[in-house]
Amino acid sequence: MDNERFERGMEMLARVDGEQGDRVMEALGDVAPDLARLMVEYGFGDVYSRPGLSLKERELITIAALAAKGGCEPQLKVHLHGAMNVGWTREEIVETFLQISVYAGFPAALNAVFAAKAVFAERGSGED
Amino acid sequence: MDNERFERGMEMLARVDGEQGDRVMEALGDVAPDLARLMVEYGFGDVYSRPGLSLKERELITIAALAAKGGCEPQLKVHLHGAMNVGWTREEIVETFLQISVYAGFPAALNAVFAAKAVFAERGSGED
Amino acid sequence: MDNERFERGMEMLARVDGEQGDRVMEALGDVAPDLARLMVEYGFGDVYSRPGLSLKERELITIAALAAKGGCEPQLKVHLHGAMNVGWTREEIVETFLQISVYAGFPAALNAVFAAKAVFAERGSGED
Amino acid sequence: MDNERFERGMEMLARVDGEQGDRVMEALGDVAPDLARLMVEYGFGDVYSRPGLSLKERELITIAALAAKGGCEPQLKVHLHGAMNVGWTREEIVETFLQISVYAGFPAALNAVFAAKAVFAERGSGED
Amino acid sequence: MDNERFERGMEMLARVDGEQGDRVMEALGDVAPDLARLMVEYGFGDVYSRPGLSLKERELITIAALAAKGGCEPQLKVHLHGAMNVGWTREEIVETFLQISVYAGFPAALNAVFAAKAVFAERGSGED
Amino acid sequence: MDNERFERGMEMLARVDGEQGDRVMEALGDVAPDLARLMVEYGFGDVYSRPGLSLKERELITIAALAAKGGCEPQLKVHLHGAMNVGWTREEIVETFLQISVYAGFPAALNAVFAAKAVFAERGSGED
Repeated sequence: MDNERFERGMEMLARVDGEQGDRVMEALGDVAPDLARLMVEYGFGDVYSRPGLSLKERELITIAALAAKGGCEPQLKVHLHGAMNVGWTREEIVETFLQISVYAGFPAALNAVFAAKAVFAERGSGED
Repeated sequence: MDNERFERGMEMLARVDGEQGDRVMEALGDVAPDLARLMVEYGFGDVYSRPGLSLKERELITIAALAAKGGCEPQLKVHLHGAMNVGWTREEIVETFLQISVYAGFPAALNAVFAAKAVFAERGSGED
Repeated sequence: MDNERFERGMEMLARVDGEQGDRVMEALGDVAPDLARLMVEYGFGDVYSRPGLSLKERELITIAALAAKGGCEPQLKVHLHGAMNVGWTREEIVETFLQISVYAGFPAALNAVFAAKAVFAERGSGED
Repeated sequence: MDNERFERGMEMLARVDGEQGDRVMEALGDVAPDLARLMVEYGFGDVYSRPGLSLKERELITIAALAAKGGCEPQLKVHLHGAMNVGWTREEIVETFLQISVYAGFPAALNAVFAAKAVFAERGSGED
Repeated sequence: MDNERFERGMEMLARVDGEQGDRVMEALGDVAPDLARLMVEYGFGDVYSRPGLSLKERELITIAALAAKGGCEPQLKVHLHGAMNVGWTREEIVETFLQISVYAGFPAALNAVFAAKAVFAERGSGED
Repeated sequence: MDNERFERGMEMLARVDGEQGDRVMEALGDVAPDLARLMVEYGFGDVYSRPGLSLKERELITIAALAAKGGCEPQLKVHLHGAMNVGWTREEIVETFLQISVYAGFPAALNAVFAAKAVFAERGSGED
């Protein structure tokens, strides 16, 4: 067991992804609980918790990476919530994907923008 | 001709990528001068010049995207110079690629770190 | 503003993608209108409008690129309409994806063929 | 015609993918029958039928490759049935995708695990 | 043995890729002779030999696919020779990669153009 | 500090990748020592050390994933040594990449086979 890393990771996951993170953990729970645990321990307990970059910078890196890589729309949506939870605005997120068009082409930018459109709609008009 | 966009792009390219940008333009000059021109006009004249994100944020997006996408090491190296030209430190760049390991795996992170190692060596120990 | 490039792009978009292009522009309109504008200006106003390759050759390049890259099925579907609008037959499109199997494997070829199957069904039996 | 390779391939396809394979062949039948035939002849008649690796090893290679590549979830699902048909357990399949997290990142691992979750549900609780 | 497909493939390989094809076959000969044989039989004997698209169209599909996919520069170089052997000009090839910038981004377009620059230099100024 | 996971990881790294692993660690040491440590802790200490799949099966998954993903040739070479260190023969490795041709196309298979050819040459004729 590695309770300290897991607990630090769960706190970070809650802080970044909020209830979206809970849903991923729950969905993994019956089929791959160890993957859920390792993702929390490594991704959130080890990496997100490090100093050296702010949480806001880390989320920018994450949504840029997922948009450029492609094929990760479910994870991109979770982290679009995360990006907004840590302070990025809708305008900045769309601007990020505009920048992605230069390096990964328009289809990657469009897929990311349509993921953002869905997340913005989920969050409604009053909340960022 | 679209001189205004091209000139705005060339100024931005010089500001971000410095002499690395010149070398790419020169290398393209005899084989694909129109691609060089369009990249400056669109990438730098249209996109990098936009408000909405700082130049520093744009370079973070770019190196995250290139590292996650993979197979773009020459362009990543140009933008590692760019990232340092606009104010990112070596430690923050390495930290960025550590974050990439979570979303694109360790091989992508290693390829990016070794590109950074080469760029850091080119720039020598005194300069960031 | 860059009205000339935008207008040339909109004409080209209408000619290639027809009402499919309108739908993409409309869907982007409320979330990322600048991405819509830049895509029209750069993709259609600057690139598609160039001499050097026919419109038919450009659409072949586009569907081959999207099929090989993967993860761009929505954009592939738009350009499958585009490819047929500029003169490619259903048989030639399927043959293109058969060629893709050699260079990107059978899953890429299958994903592209199933996108084509959906587009062919939308267009009905009488129209190419 | 190449009846021997096709027949050997169809036998292998039936043995590995079972009724899932039939469905793919049927879905391709009206739009790209030659792609269906070539996939059977090359993929199953030529390659899967070779000695040198066991069928079980070949399916492990296939699901690892599809998970790492990404964007091939429909094909991954067919081969998850295939992997279980030739003897891999649910636990081993999930463990495979945990290994994938190291080399292609957590989003690729999650996408593969959720494909597995869907396939496990289709097969029900009594059958592996 | 499948002599007919292999011989048809070797003729097609010679016609398309010329001595570049021979070099690939030779390089594979001591480590993976069966991969060489299957590539000739399937890629060139089965697919390139099909009617439905001209050889020139097939090479356009191939270089577009390889440029968009990325990471296949050795194979792209072989097929850049192939594209020129079947009639594409240097200008049309560069134009193809300009089109790729829209769908896969500038890094993919640049990598392809630099591969083309190397191939054009190999072929010298007098020969296309 | 997390000495237990690190030590377990270093033992596993030594067992799988041998001196190739040492070289990667050494090359990372001055630029990204924390990435080296996390890769050992997570990749080798957490994942490779798990029961559920044999070390031989894990290496097969790894080389299949890296070959299919592409652009990871340095990491593929390290794990080709690893695959042979844990018992795979040269013939089985080549056969693995032949299987990859079906799912990721011939360029991916060729890149992997040429990586294998280089590793086989390094290891000489007497040693597997």
